[in-house]
Amino acid sequence: MTAATDKIESTECLTDTLHTPKQFLNSKKIYVDGSRPDLRVPMREISLADSPAEFNSGANPPLAVYDTSGPYTDPAVTVDVRQGIPRLREGWIEEREDTELLPNHSSRFSRSIEHDATSNSMEFSASHPLRCARAGKTVTQMHYARKGIITPEMEFVAIRENQRLDAVRDQGLRFRHAGEDFGAAIPEEITPEFVRNEIAVGRAIIPANVNHPESEPMIIGRNFLVKINANIGNSAVTSSIEEEVEKMTWATRWGADTLMDLSTGKNIHETREWIIRNCPVPVGTVPIYQALEKVNGDPAELTWDIYRDTLIEQAEQGVDYFTIHAGVLLRYIPLTAERVTGIVSRGGAILAKWCLTHHKENFLYTHFSEICEIMRAYDVSFSLGDGLRPGSIADANDQAQFAELKTLGELTKVAWEHDVQVMIEGPGHVPMQLIKVNMEKELDACHEAPFYTLGPLTTDIAPGYDHITSAIGAAMIGWYGCAMLCYVTPKEHLGLPNKEDVREGVIAYKIAAHAADLAKGHPAAQVRDNAVSKARFEFRWHDQFNLSLDPDRAREYHDETLPKESSKVAHFCSMCGPRFCSMKISQDVRDYAKVKGTASYDEAISMGLHEKAKEFSSQLQ
Amino acid sequence: MTAATDKIESTECLTDTLHTPKQFLNSKKIYVDGSRPDLRVPMREISLADSPAEFNSGANPPLAVYDTSGPYTDPAVTVDVRQGIPRLREGWIEEREDTELLPNHSSRFSRSIEHDATSNSMEFSASHPLRCARAGKTVTQMHYARKGIITPEMEFVAIRENQRLDAVRDQGLRFRHAGEDFGAAIPEEITPEFVRNEIAVGRAIIPANVNHPESEPMIIGRNFLVKINANIGNSAVTSSIEEEVEKMTWATRWGADTLMDLSTGKNIHETREWIIRNCPVPVGTVPIYQALEKVNGDPAELTWDIYRDTLIEQAEQGVDYFTIHAGVLLRYIPLTAERVTGIVSRGGAILAKWCLTHHKENFLYTHFSEICEIMRAYDVSFSLGDGLRPGSIADANDQAQFAELKTLGELTKVAWEHDVQVMIEGPGHVPMQLIKVNMEKELDACHEAPFYTLGPLTTDIAPGYDHITSAIGAAMIGWYGCAMLCYVTPKEHLGLPNKEDVREGVIAYKIAAHAADLAKGHPAAQVRDNAVSKARFEFRWHDQFNLSLDPDRAREYHDETLPKESSKVAHFCSMCGPRFCSMKISQDVRDYAKVKGTASYDEAISMGLHEKAKEFSSQLQ
Repeated sequence: MTAATDKIESTECLTDTLHTPKQFLNSKKIYVDGSRPDLRVPMREISLADSPAEFNSGANPPLAVYDTSGPYTDPAVTVDVRQGIPRLREGWIEEREDTELLPNHSSRFSRSIEHDATSNSMEFSASHPLRCARAGKTVTQMHYARKGIITPEMEFVAIRENQRLDAVRDQGLRFRHAGEDFGAAIPEEITPEFVRNEIAVGRAIIPANVNHPESEPMIIGRNFLVKINANIGNSAVTSSIEEEVEKMTWATRWGADTLMDLSTGKNIHETREWIIRNCPVPVGTVPIYQALEKVNGDPAELTWDIYRDTLIEQAEQGVDYFTIHAGVLLRYIPLTAERVTGIVSRGGAILAKWCLTHHKENFLYTHFSEICEIMRAYDVSFSLGDGLRPGSIADANDQAQFAELKTLGELTKVAWEHDVQVMIEGPGHVPMQLIKVNMEKELDACHEAPFYTLGPLTTDIAPGYDHITSAIGAAMIGWYGCAMLCYVTPKEHLGLPNKEDVREGVIAYKIAAHAADLAKGHPAAQVRDNAVSKARFEFRWHDQFNLSLDPDRAREYHDETLPKESSKVAHFCSMCGPRFCSMKISQDVRDYAKVKGTASYDEAISMGLHEKAKEFSSQLQ
Repeated sequence: MTAATDKIESTECLTDTLHTPKQFLNSKKIYVDGSRPDLRVPMREISLADSPAEFNSGANPPLAVYDTSGPYTDPAVTVDVRQGIPRLREGWIEEREDTELLPNHSSRFSRSIEHDATSNSMEFSASHPLRCARAGKTVTQMHYARKGIITPEMEFVAIRENQRLDAVRDQGLRFRHAGEDFGAAIPEEITPEFVRNEIAVGRAIIPANVNHPESEPMIIGRNFLVKINANIGNSAVTSSIEEEVEKMTWATRWGADTLMDLSTGKNIHETREWIIRNCPVPVGTVPIYQALEKVNGDPAELTWDIYRDTLIEQAEQGVDYFTIHAGVLLRYIPLTAERVTGIVSRGGAILAKWCLTHHKENFLYTHFSEICEIMRAYDVSFSLGDGLRPGSIADANDQAQFAELKTLGELTKVAWEHDVQVMIEGPGHVPMQLIKVNMEKELDACHEAPFYTLGPLTTDIAPGYDHITSAIGAAMIGWYGCAMLCYVTPKEHLGLPNKEDVREGVIAYKIAAHAADLAKGHPAAQVRDNAVSKARFEFRWHDQFNLSLDPDRAREYHDETLPKESSKVAHFCSMCGPRFCSMKISQDVRDYAKVKGTASYDEAISMGLHEKAKEFSSQLQ
């Protein structure tokens, strides 16, 4: 790596009207081969400059990092968003011979809009094959895992999770020991068999709908890297399909592990099709949002039939996980009446309204087994929704919240009887001292199914900064064992996020997830911290930028003070200026220690300072 | 409060070339009277709108919040930054009759620049009286506290800390109980006597130099509200005096409890004079920075004599606390040689360089008693610097760090023998699982002296976002008992913060401090959360903005999506749109519960759902 390549600028390219992201500076897409030719696990390799001569440490090996950006950052792939991205998993799904292609949509709604002139202009250009389990077959990763089968998806995630272990072994850098530990058991090396077992027992999931073969397999479970989800989606008030697809490509470039499309406005179906066909990560939805649109927004008009058709519609589009608020039971609803902020989950509120209007039990609960039958035919995972999550510090950890959690635990068992994968959604707004008990209760009530929380926000008083109020809670609950963190953007409580807000939210949550990985003692997590810090110490400014979570931002901020290229190889920074620098002095200390041949306290003492030290100690008595 | 007043825009005013902040919208400065006419404690009172009729909750009492903004936000005071702000504490200091006015500067350096033509253009226009303890007198708050004297400063902070207790009692809102507790003992009501005792035993400090009577007293200790510090200051590379004074006024408007002036470039003395004369909060410095300037940046040339003169120079200007790296002992320096990032504290590095060059013990350590003699003559508090703090995750909690901490504990005792107030500086970069032990070791080694940490940053991989990586660690250590959190801005590691960066840093740290107050179970902290959440639930948009930590930001973000005034009284928001709203449904639940007369689980069961529930339960077995 020479200084010359450092000058290449990161650029965007126009694909139709969309600005999709290109590769980061000094990064390249690499693929780690698995046991078969069609199993190639993408990673991003960051090349690093040599250490300057005065630091005596020579060449710095490139660092491979987890890469969620998909084919957009591979110059060998030309993406046409009107055609969708390559269908990576299609061969694996086909060769299992337990699915079949359908001649037509199974959903009435999907059939009805196929020839609807009003939506044609927005329709996705290429039609994708519709796949479903053959009669009597279960096609979930949990089903295979329990049969003892290691799927290509499982091998893929094993390789993906291990990516940085070579670097750990090679560099021999010092690692901090874990302090308090909360029962995660991350092995030194993630094997495909370890993955299979975690899925079989329900401690982890691979959301992988057979109709979303474009998705690169990833795993959600507390014995793996902590993942993050980014919410996108338009509403009745704002934003277009193009904006949402663009947000999706950028969210994954910045590091989103899954995406939820929470659209509530018009064209929900079309928006979703565009997103899924172009999305390299699993996509989740809250199907009740679309069901509500179909009954013109009146919760009382919802029926099981309309909801069921919506599940099938979305399952055949390729949604990988559904948020389903089946734990909002009629008898729990009055428990929210005394709350400061009542029911803040939209799904929870819709179901509550339905239950109250009809004075009947939640139809998602009464039809839960039928829902499981649909999910297992496409491998859609459950994200059991916390419809009664607290919406304020005052409402945290109350009776309504924990009553619902217990029901979610019961439903988890039912889903597992159908071999359907499950994760559990969690709050919300929780002050720091009440976060840990959320994790403990979830593991206990829900039989160690992966937990997936929204934040939690640790205070209510900072609208405009809720990515920060919640990153605090997210980092903590990630440490305690939460498997996936749903991001919160600065616009939370105020408006819908634009692309910049998505960036702020994703990076805040990458920070929280990584801080949690470090705290859990994940064997590979600290490699990147060490690489950044070594680059910082050695004034390799470009490397410091390129290794960071948001290289463009780091570079931009440095340029504000010292824009010249010469400053990026200068051995000082704007904080102290050129005359004095603590890093420089630290190197003097190293040189001194080398000459004096001492690097330990005892040796220092024996250098003749012992008497001096005693003298001062006696003065201090 | 009517809707009409909601329309007044928050504006800035030009004072000379400076943009100093004005009051927040719908806020006004109030003063709570103490036991004497000249003891008036400023607070910011936020007036709130009535609840809309459908929420049946009538008028909402105004909320008084802690106010660090000083006279700039009081329309009754006209501030001329060339003259300085009113000298609030002058009478209290005078009436103690233990100080005298000096005819001339005691510092050679101060005398030498008085008639220096080159700095005249930047010289502060009004000269302030120079005050010093009379011979043989000690003028520290600790000295008075130990004599059993309750000073006006102590009464002032007692009133200030208590501000929201009336609201707690009046509103009868529900509060979350504390979970894990780490030994803080915050009483239901802070009395002047409680303050006195905390100071007497060294658990808290009131930084209050007799030469900074402009400062409004505040207290730093773990049985009080968690405080935050903002660093400002120019360097050899960037920024002007005007910029720094402007940053100061805005930092305190956003909520900084103290400010450190870390200037390292030219005109350090003049910059500091402008800041102190206009600063309503305590000001801290690192005197070795200026001492180094006086020897042209070569640490080897530093002498005790130059340093001593600098301490006196700054003490007579009115600096309230000095960071002094007296714990960087020669024998500890080699312990840093194997670190990834060596010594990252500038002060620590300067002293290390000096020690190595001369092969002598740190002159701040050998002259520590003399330093105490100076501090007690002006009531400058110690902030015992952690010159060997870790600068990366890899270096956290190492032998060098904890060896120095132990020495700081020894020095704390020496300072206390001189009745000098002490706080202890802490790291730095620490992964989450290693944070708690930092707090525990500090309390143990330093005899419960208040801890004052920089973050800590919980990962190294996010330059550009270190206000977030560190707000996570700051919130946690605040919960564990840290008394003051030194902010980190988004520019950390990359450049010097501008005004917007100061805003981001201060708000991130107000969030961390408040989250910690909540977690510690501070009796009044949750009042503001409840007020925001109640406003949110009732769609009182303006109140939600005005109650937030950064009302301007909240308003701006809301306006991006829904700019019309009508949207701010609308009973929906951009997230769900007008047709459907979960808050609306929650109100339906309340109405339902009221009609049905049920608000408990048991009653709901008895509403006839018991059989239904059993039926589903049996299906689930």
